[in-house]
Amino acid sequence: MAQEKEGNKLWGGRFTGAVDPIMESFNASISYDKRMWDADIKGSKAYVQAIEKVGLVTSEERDQILEGLDKVHAEWSQGTFQIKSGDEDIHTANERRLKELIGTPAGKLHTGRSRNDQVATDMRLWLRDNLATLKSYVIELLNVFVNRAKIEMDVLMPGYTHLQRAQPIRWSHWLMNYGAMLQRDTQRLDELARRVNFLPLGSGALAGNPFEVDREFLARELKFADVTSNSLDAVSDRDFVVEFLFWASLTSTHLSRWAEDLILYCSKEFSFVSLSDAYSTGSSLMPQKKNADSLELIRGKAGRIFGHQAGFMMTLKGVPSTYNKDLQEDKEAMFDVYDTMAGILQVATGVLSTLKIEKDNMRKALSPDMLATDLAYYLVRKGVPFREAHGMSGGCVALAEAKGVPLNELTVDDLKTISPKFESDVEKVWDYENSVEQYSAFGGTSRSSVNQQIVKLETWLKTLK
Amino acid sequence: MAQEKEGNKLWGGRFTGAVDPIMESFNASISYDKRMWDADIKGSKAYVQAIEKVGLVTSEERDQILEGLDKVHAEWSQGTFQIKSGDEDIHTANERRLKELIGTPAGKLHTGRSRNDQVATDMRLWLRDNLATLKSYVIELLNVFVNRAKIEMDVLMPGYTHLQRAQPIRWSHWLMNYGAMLQRDTQRLDELARRVNFLPLGSGALAGNPFEVDREFLARELKFADVTSNSLDAVSDRDFVVEFLFWASLTSTHLSRWAEDLILYCSKEFSFVSLSDAYSTGSSLMPQKKNADSLELIRGKAGRIFGHQAGFMMTLKGVPSTYNKDLQEDKEAMFDVYDTMAGILQVATGVLSTLKIEKDNMRKALSPDMLATDLAYYLVRKGVPFREAHGMSGGCVALAEAKGVPLNELTVDDLKTISPKFESDVEKVWDYENSVEQYSAFGGTSRSSVNQQIVKLETWLKTLK
Amino acid sequence: MAQEKEGNKLWGGRFTGAVDPIMESFNASISYDKRMWDADIKGSKAYVQAIEKVGLVTSEERDQILEGLDKVHAEWSQGTFQIKSGDEDIHTANERRLKELIGTPAGKLHTGRSRNDQVATDMRLWLRDNLATLKSYVIELLNVFVNRAKIEMDVLMPGYTHLQRAQPIRWSHWLMNYGAMLQRDTQRLDELARRVNFLPLGSGALAGNPFEVDREFLARELKFADVTSNSLDAVSDRDFVVEFLFWASLTSTHLSRWAEDLILYCSKEFSFVSLSDAYSTGSSLMPQKKNADSLELIRGKAGRIFGHQAGFMMTLKGVPSTYNKDLQEDKEAMFDVYDTMAGILQVATGVLSTLKIEKDNMRKALSPDMLATDLAYYLVRKGVPFREAHGMSGGCVALAEAKGVPLNELTVDDLKTISPKFESDVEKVWDYENSVEQYSAFGGTSRSSVNQQIVKLETWLKTLK
Amino acid sequence: MAQEKEGNKLWGGRFTGAVDPIMESFNASISYDKRMWDADIKGSKAYVQAIEKVGLVTSEERDQILEGLDKVHAEWSQGTFQIKSGDEDIHTANERRLKELIGTPAGKLHTGRSRNDQVATDMRLWLRDNLATLKSYVIELLNVFVNRAKIEMDVLMPGYTHLQRAQPIRWSHWLMNYGAMLQRDTQRLDELARRVNFLPLGSGALAGNPFEVDREFLARELKFADVTSNSLDAVSDRDFVVEFLFWASLTSTHLSRWAEDLILYCSKEFSFVSLSDAYSTGSSLMPQKKNADSLELIRGKAGRIFGHQAGFMMTLKGVPSTYNKDLQEDKEAMFDVYDTMAGILQVATGVLSTLKIEKDNMRKALSPDMLATDLAYYLVRKGVPFREAHGMSGGCVALAEAKGVPLNELTVDDLKTISPKFESDVEKVWDYENSVEQYSAFGGTSRSSVNQQIVKLETWLKTLK
Repeated sequence: MAQEKEGNKLWGGRFTGAVDPIMESFNASISYDKRMWDADIKGSKAYVQAIEKVGLVTSEERDQILEGLDKVHAEWSQGTFQIKSGDEDIHTANERRLKELIGTPAGKLHTGRSRNDQVATDMRLWLRDNLATLKSYVIELLNVFVNRAKIEMDVLMPGYTHLQRAQPIRWSHWLMNYGAMLQRDTQRLDELARRVNFLPLGSGALAGNPFEVDREFLARELKFADVTSNSLDAVSDRDFVVEFLFWASLTSTHLSRWAEDLILYCSKEFSFVSLSDAYSTGSSLMPQKKNADSLELIRGKAGRIFGHQAGFMMTLKGVPSTYNKDLQEDKEAMFDVYDTMAGILQVATGVLSTLKIEKDNMRKALSPDMLATDLAYYLVRKGVPFREAHGMSGGCVALAEAKGVPLNELTVDDLKTISPKFESDVEKVWDYENSVEQYSAFGGTSRSSVNQQIVKLETWLKTLK
Repeated sequence: MAQEKEGNKLWGGRFTGAVDPIMESFNASISYDKRMWDADIKGSKAYVQAIEKVGLVTSEERDQILEGLDKVHAEWSQGTFQIKSGDEDIHTANERRLKELIGTPAGKLHTGRSRNDQVATDMRLWLRDNLATLKSYVIELLNVFVNRAKIEMDVLMPGYTHLQRAQPIRWSHWLMNYGAMLQRDTQRLDELARRVNFLPLGSGALAGNPFEVDREFLARELKFADVTSNSLDAVSDRDFVVEFLFWASLTSTHLSRWAEDLILYCSKEFSFVSLSDAYSTGSSLMPQKKNADSLELIRGKAGRIFGHQAGFMMTLKGVPSTYNKDLQEDKEAMFDVYDTMAGILQVATGVLSTLKIEKDNMRKALSPDMLATDLAYYLVRKGVPFREAHGMSGGCVALAEAKGVPLNELTVDDLKTISPKFESDVEKVWDYENSVEQYSAFGGTSRSSVNQQIVKLETWLKTLK
Repeated sequence: MAQEKEGNKLWGGRFTGAVDPIMESFNASISYDKRMWDADIKGSKAYVQAIEKVGLVTSEERDQILEGLDKVHAEWSQGTFQIKSGDEDIHTANERRLKELIGTPAGKLHTGRSRNDQVATDMRLWLRDNLATLKSYVIELLNVFVNRAKIEMDVLMPGYTHLQRAQPIRWSHWLMNYGAMLQRDTQRLDELARRVNFLPLGSGALAGNPFEVDREFLARELKFADVTSNSLDAVSDRDFVVEFLFWASLTSTHLSRWAEDLILYCSKEFSFVSLSDAYSTGSSLMPQKKNADSLELIRGKAGRIFGHQAGFMMTLKGVPSTYNKDLQEDKEAMFDVYDTMAGILQVATGVLSTLKIEKDNMRKALSPDMLATDLAYYLVRKGVPFREAHGMSGGCVALAEAKGVPLNELTVDDLKTISPKFESDVEKVWDYENSVEQYSAFGGTSRSSVNQQIVKLETWLKTLK
Repeated sequence: MAQEKEGNKLWGGRFTGAVDPIMESFNASISYDKRMWDADIKGSKAYVQAIEKVGLVTSEERDQILEGLDKVHAEWSQGTFQIKSGDEDIHTANERRLKELIGTPAGKLHTGRSRNDQVATDMRLWLRDNLATLKSYVIELLNVFVNRAKIEMDVLMPGYTHLQRAQPIRWSHWLMNYGAMLQRDTQRLDELARRVNFLPLGSGALAGNPFEVDREFLARELKFADVTSNSLDAVSDRDFVVEFLFWASLTSTHLSRWAEDLILYCSKEFSFVSLSDAYSTGSSLMPQKKNADSLELIRGKAGRIFGHQAGFMMTLKGVPSTYNKDLQEDKEAMFDVYDTMAGILQVATGVLSTLKIEKDNMRKALSPDMLATDLAYYLVRKGVPFREAHGMSGGCVALAEAKGVPLNELTVDDLKTISPKFESDVEKVWDYENSVEQYSAFGGTSRSSVNQQIVKLETWLKTLK
């Protein structure tokens, strides 16, 4: 009975013991790796053609196998594929079904191939195609940042450091801050995608392929840019997974910072923006509440994604070379991070594109003390060394506090007690628009500089496929 | 339409916008938190009794609600409960169904309660009960360690440090090494379980309960040891989750070390043990292979579990006080770690209880150079200061290497060239059993000492519930 | 020359090759483990007494060694101890110096001992004593929370969930929120401290002690509660380090949440508190800035501490049993986390005890819409089922928004359009003090309930040593 | 007094409170950021030239400042620079010293600059230059892999999967496995180095530079490839640090796997290699021990490095945009990871270049059952479908086990009981060299294929600067 139970396992004739059902489910990956059914079939279709070219199957057998694989594909597409007990992974499942459909020739498909090179191939195929989707989501989000930045250029708001009001900036400048981050994220995505796009098929279990299959042919068939160069490495290299997890972790950390900003800006105390109802939820207890759940989820899920990276790197650490079963932890991490990132990016796009800004509140949050640096610069322009000017401006801030007036209501006489350089033209300092327009060096918050950032990013966006 | 769509949400009448379906699935937790259906119903049954005591529902309404909740329970038990669109979490789902079953009185159940205290209660109930299961698995595994240690006391093997053969030890001593780790793990489990067992219900959304519900009554009903002491804390305290994740992470790290040892001992090079077929698998390519998949999975999954701890701690870091939606990341981590630990512990028990040891190979792996310390101790016992004796014994090792003979084949004359203290009684040093029996201080590898360890652990095991 | 260079290494006469200086510094731990000089000497003083009792040294030799160790101790105390090249760790350094001071008998001290059990002993001694210091810092901080809570009981502020104003609470209730967290942290500290307090000395390199040294005597001398039970485990058990790292990670995560709250409350937008200048710093560029650096550092360092836990757990994962050099990563993590936690706790105490609260701003931040739940409860008390009442209250919120008035300025006639149950007594709802006082169930925000929390915590604090 | 104490702080005249000394040391970074003294001076020298170009300093002042900075540089070079109390970071220290040396003009240097853009510039300069050093270490190590692979091509050894002997491979193939990993590591290093090489100077505190400094000029002076594009991003972008930490984490994870392999191969049980004494150490207790400490340290330090990445990512998560003091955690992580990686790479190079291989032991570890796949392929070549052939070969393995003979000692008659296809030519299967030579597809273990890998890698190495 045990033997029968084992009968549909790949390794066939040797094992005699029974399998512990808990072990069986501990070991099986079909519940999640079935997601790669399409990649698995694609890989097999390419492989059967390659082994036909070296005579391991006849052209008739090849055609039978191809046709059979198409039928298996159709079953998955139509949702009629039946997973049976003993189908421990997608490779076993597909081959089992192929055998049921076409009989003996199915037994030739795996010649010279191992699940080790097969699963690495499936994962790379799957990830490569899904990275393209993620890239499109990133670009879509980037476009929203850029578009709002173009349209809402006039809006001024406080720039913060240490969550303290620091200097007036343009809202568009704040938007382009995240544009800069997402641009780097896109570049990193492209770089890692290139490393995903290497074909491991033809590496066997570890030693390589002994039948001179044409790996270049396989790569062309499966649209890989190149083949991997060392079979020991190829069957256990999961750098492409780790890189993807890291990419997602860094990208989501960026979006966690963005979410943090917006959660603050949505609070009553800031009231700079309000979220569309579509991205907020209410309270089961407090009727007046409108919570920025979407943003909190984005912020929180940065942890989840990082957890996958952390976990999988720990799994890899210190594992001997080539394939070890520990590596099976790769897939759930990859899938969950893909799903989570897809959610984060699309929700972020939704949030940002429906967000309403409260210009007046932003403007009201600007206060004269935020121009203290400008006051120092006023003195610098009159020849005072910056260190002294900075100290004097600090003195003005203290004086205004002592007198209980806003900084801009100190009289010229008041100011002259700090430095004789102050004259009536100091009043030009107290204009937020003027302040912002000073920062015209590239990267700064003046209109021209923000425009330049936009143009540069748009130009770059156009170069992307 | 949008309103209708929103109609079955908890917060009722205010929202007017439509919900983005991606946001909806991003936000919904029903797909995984339904696992707490039983805890949720238990909590509601207790709560309705508590609000009846303060007159918020009549005794008739209480009975209707209790009966209705029993029906909902029965549907879940029988697998007939239908999740509907709009059931964003288990609390909403159960209350929606209750209302369908009993009508108006259902609308009173949530009085003074918030999903914030409700979900914290459900999670603690769920975890408390499942920790008891995990504890039973740990104890079962501990028993296998102890039992083998008792039975296989005669078996000697090399003890390793730095993966180099160091000194002969008893196999039972090696087993009890892991016994000591798992004992600590059990103690830690008990400690954290005590902190899980506090009732948050009655904390409302954050400010507490305004209807003087008797929280002590609720705690007794739900078998909690005590109530939480601050409502702001109670609704967002997830220490109990983090502690559980950490517990699992440390326990699985212990088992990863155990797995590493056994993977080595299973290798051809060591050949100290062989796994039952039930816990190994073969290769799809290499017919002779028998891989210790079970152990590799245990080793690898230590990473997965740590990843959950890492991820959730990152999620918590820097989040403002009280409830924020970020916390929703708690449940999938908790469930997956529970499942993974349950698998690890049961599979480890299976592996250890069916493992075959190869005593002869273990004995053959003992070599005279492992007695070099004993040779130094021989000199120490003749009055040579240890540092000198250690140097002399090192000299003997070098001499034996130079002469190309095992250390125990140096003649007394050879040895005298190193120290005149060597005499013919040196031959007693070359007995592995004697060597092992020297280590009779508590904790050592002598028979009496290992026995003492076993007795102590068994005595302790009997004290556990 | 190479041989000479090796001459003062512990393993003496065998090695013949030269050592790569990069390897030497990669390997050496003296630069940081010297911090345990006191613990190392204490351990040696106990050990020499134990080996005298079993005749391995004479009582004269014992006294010479004790005296010599006291001299070494004095050199460290006075800062005159000279580390020499070849002193790769604190154990080697101390023994080398002892030999210089007293000659031959020094060579007997290490009999039956290994650096493996020695370092484990040193670390546990060091950590045990330093945990007591950390505990005193936690308690000091807890006392500040409790004391402020007692004094500032009258102050009301908005309670937030999702960073949205939710319900009025007492400031003291917010303080006690962190009191509850720190109480759990203290309990966890006590629990792990108990596990630190086991003596590994007498475990040798791995197999135990072959000279029947009295480990119970050693434990008493060094004030350990008990001895470790398995020598293989004892030399490589670093659970006590991991537990400490985790403890610090969770405690600092709590304080990161506290810091986040206060950073928000310090912002211009909230203006609920202002930090003492002693805990803020200015800007090198912007004279008006006053940044909450202390709090940002606390928040940021929660990451650093977690990083140590993550790193060391990864180091441990999958390492074979007993001692492996990988474990040397334990000490820098332990020291840095100790220092960081000591800083965090003391700075937090300083911040909290010098913080100025702005009661008026807190009060001004309360708004009628925060009483929407109370409005629903008003209806509940008039017999409306909560779900309906919640919906009606939501309707009132919407109506007030539509009319552009605060919720409490809706007339009774307005309210009656939503529900006929509204009557003139509704005006009692609009009192924040009343609102807060409703939450009188234990754990709630009413005066009596917060007082009860304080009393309970103070009572518990008195039970602590 | 407090004022005086504050006097040498950058923010000058406003603060009136005293500073807590614990806070002061909590806050100060000079103990570690002084390491960037050279970068800091370089940046200032470029900056003073830029502000001279826009008239903020005269050409005389510029020259005075340049000369002064050269003197400060000389003091650091000669180890005579004195850090004074109040020098909280390297920027303050250098400017304070400059002022002492040249007086008033020093106060103009910081005009339009903030420590926010200054520190980001210093870090990028420092890291850029040190990445070049790390790259040279990686390449040096890669060269050792390649050189040994060329020289030791004849050596055969068992290839392992799941730590079970799988198929014979070339030792050079094993070496090139790590060559492939390090090649990817080098590519990743190049990619991240490009992102380091952007100049943030001219971003001010957050809003940009208001004096139209020529940032392109600054970039050319400091040899940056380009300037950053958004000032808010530029002052708080630490992607380049995170990317570096991740790079080091992945690279060290590769080397942890390599170390694990070699630790196994160094064990008595494998005895495939022996380490030079320069990279091993002995035991303080066991004279015969020779431990692979170097490799264990490498394996262990992969955890340490990952810990830094984990910690710093947690620090970043959820921090609001622009500069917050939390970011100060960046530097110690960066420095420690640099030092650790430099150590790992150099020690690995030392280990690998002095390692002695034991060819005979490797060869002896090959056993006929490792040719079971070849036996299946024998049948495949006779037309048996692979699945059947695999089963038959498994049957042969079982038969040999049952008869207690090695697989290659089954007679042709024995074999025929499994399949009639077996004939006397089966004996050609039992040649390890033949087996290895089958794997001639690219990436495989045949001589030609390994040679091709070597040539390809060498060619690529030549393309590197």
